[in-house]
Amino acid sequence: MTAWRVLFTMLTILVTTGTCAAESPSEIRWVNATSLRLEGQGWPGETRPFRRLPDRAEGKVPDKVWELSGNCAGLAVRFVSDSSEIHVRWTLSAPFTMNHMADTGISGLDLYVRRDGGWRWMAVGRPDGVENEKLLVSGLPRERRELMLYLPLYNGLTRLEIGVPAGCLIEPAPAWPEGTKPIVFYGTSIVQGGCASRPGMAYPAILGRRLDLPSVNLGFSGNGKTEPEMADLLAELDAAVFVIDPLPNMGAVPVEERINYLLNVLRRKRPGTPVILVESYGNRGEPARSGRRPEDTSVNEEMRRAYQKAKPLWGGLLTLVEGRTLLGEDCEDTVDGVHPTDLGFHRLADALEPALRKALGR
Amino acid sequence: MTAWRVLFTMLTILVTTGTCAAESPSEIRWVNATSLRLEGQGWPGETRPFRRLPDRAEGKVPDKVWELSGNCAGLAVRFVSDSSEIHVRWTLSAPFTMNHMADTGISGLDLYVRRDGGWRWMAVGRPDGVENEKLLVSGLPRERRELMLYLPLYNGLTRLEIGVPAGCLIEPAPAWPEGTKPIVFYGTSIVQGGCASRPGMAYPAILGRRLDLPSVNLGFSGNGKTEPEMADLLAELDAAVFVIDPLPNMGAVPVEERINYLLNVLRRKRPGTPVILVESYGNRGEPARSGRRPEDTSVNEEMRRAYQKAKPLWGGLLTLVEGRTLLGEDCEDTVDGVHPTDLGFHRLADALEPALRKALGR
Repeated sequence: MTAWRVLFTMLTILVTTGTCAAESPSEIRWVNATSLRLEGQGWPGETRPFRRLPDRAEGKVPDKVWELSGNCAGLAVRFVSDSSEIHVRWTLSAPFTMNHMADTGISGLDLYVRRDGGWRWMAVGRPDGVENEKLLVSGLPRERRELMLYLPLYNGLTRLEIGVPAGCLIEPAPAWPEGTKPIVFYGTSIVQGGCASRPGMAYPAILGRRLDLPSVNLGFSGNGKTEPEMADLLAELDAAVFVIDPLPNMGAVPVEERINYLLNVLRRKRPGTPVILVESYGNRGEPARSGRRPEDTSVNEEMRRAYQKAKPLWGGLLTLVEGRTLLGEDCEDTVDGVHPTDLGFHRLADALEPALRKALGR
Repeated sequence: MTAWRVLFTMLTILVTTGTCAAESPSEIRWVNATSLRLEGQGWPGETRPFRRLPDRAEGKVPDKVWELSGNCAGLAVRFVSDSSEIHVRWTLSAPFTMNHMADTGISGLDLYVRRDGGWRWMAVGRPDGVENEKLLVSGLPRERRELMLYLPLYNGLTRLEIGVPAGCLIEPAPAWPEGTKPIVFYGTSIVQGGCASRPGMAYPAILGRRLDLPSVNLGFSGNGKTEPEMADLLAELDAAVFVIDPLPNMGAVPVEERINYLLNVLRRKRPGTPVILVESYGNRGEPARSGRRPEDTSVNEEMRRAYQKAKPLWGGLLTLVEGRTLLGEDCEDTVDGVHPTDLGFHRLADALEPALRKALGR
């Protein structure tokens, strides 16, 4: 009996290897990512495949916001494959580096696999330049699995292909169950994912995995200013919940007025959709002479006023998460006082998850 | 009375500002870091000020180890200043980048302040090139404080100067109490600090702060192979405790034999000094077909044999920390399956701290 099992296993390996093997790079079958399930787009099907805002936003939102909407933060490709190896090749929009964030986060790819009812990290694609081709993972058991590949946080793509050995299965992942709505995150570089080590460690990505929901990242580095035009665009989205986290970019703009506008437009156009307002945790570096805690900033005070005013109208659908709860007391969770490291993003996700679960009735 | 206090405070501010102010960059007084308290060196006072091994190690340890000993991992300058601003200028040994680690960790500086009985993060020095000059922090209250500046994890320095406005105090921090011994860490890139976002987030640095002890980082990226020559050098150090974490680099070398040699030499030359052996946590990416947990590697099995053999001779001074306890179950704490992010380093520190406290009798 045991001998038969061994023989059977060996035959199975031979057969499956025979139908899906790569002995030279030319045998890889490359599939355009846009033919798979591209997720994290609020406005799918526009002319630019990896952009976060719709074509008509150009000229309507500030130029810098439009430009940043070409960064792929939060976009992910979900697909099914039975291959023992996954290859990727990607072309970046332009060379771009920052001295406080790893290139893997800025321009890399990040692969997860659905396992044991959740998502487990699998492999990272480390970029070497504008053109990249990598074997992400090999030696996997030959069985059908669902994979999710996150795209670069601070760069755009002009090409993304996923490769498997000829004869292996690769197809779009199943659609979400009918009626599934995404979590929509709006805000600053912190929402966009600066300075995560990998695209999957931006906090909207972590929370999307934890809650197993699609996640739309509308973080715009330095430009999360809650302009009325941006508020109107947000209200176009049929979200499960809106997470509004723009304050660190709003020091020079009328916070209360803009948050009021945003809340009004969301309540009018998306009645019944919960909204979570996120305070700023301030700068975690050594506080200057004022003696104020870093999170006690005037932008927080202004948003609290907007929240208090709106709250009675929202019937429990409006939540405020306080800045002091977002990061650790040790002040070790940012790289520069402002941008979370993976430690900071993990803590941000921990801090926001209960508010999200409550808003989603889970 | 209150009016008097206000007047007195104002006068104090005027006076102290008057004696320690910078209105133009030329008024900064630059102090060579080597004239302050340079810490984290096992062999201080050698000819090369920022090197981690003694001159005589050249040609004795493998060339690559010697070369890596020029990286400043774990070195720190401790000093006292009453300045409201701290400037730094530093010259790197060479341009060097990696695509999975931020330049702030590779080549940056990282400033902490002693506060409330511990160390609190203050500011990071972001490198722009080989030559750098930065204002790290400003606006601090004018009072005497102890500061600690960590040096680059993966680069060397040919110059490091700390600047304060002319007239401000800057002097070496007080020496440690008589008899204070350092924690000595030996190992791989993980010990050296790859891929921390800032020098202060390498796990030997975190643990040095938590235990408030000097910390010597002898991590050699890709080259923590426990050569007998390296073991002999380690045994020269009068450590509070040795933390031995080389396994991820020892796949191709005789682990049991080398760990046996190291333990023998430490027991002979440093009787009474506790030793903590750290297993490898393996590769945290998706496990391949073997089905083994990532930490169940043959290097761990070999080290466990050496540990079991040596244990009866050590009278409780020898500890083994298991690989499965080191990182999280979520496998989210590395950038590439091997190198911890700040989340991973925080978890590594959490995992090792109890063993260190026990070894140190705290």
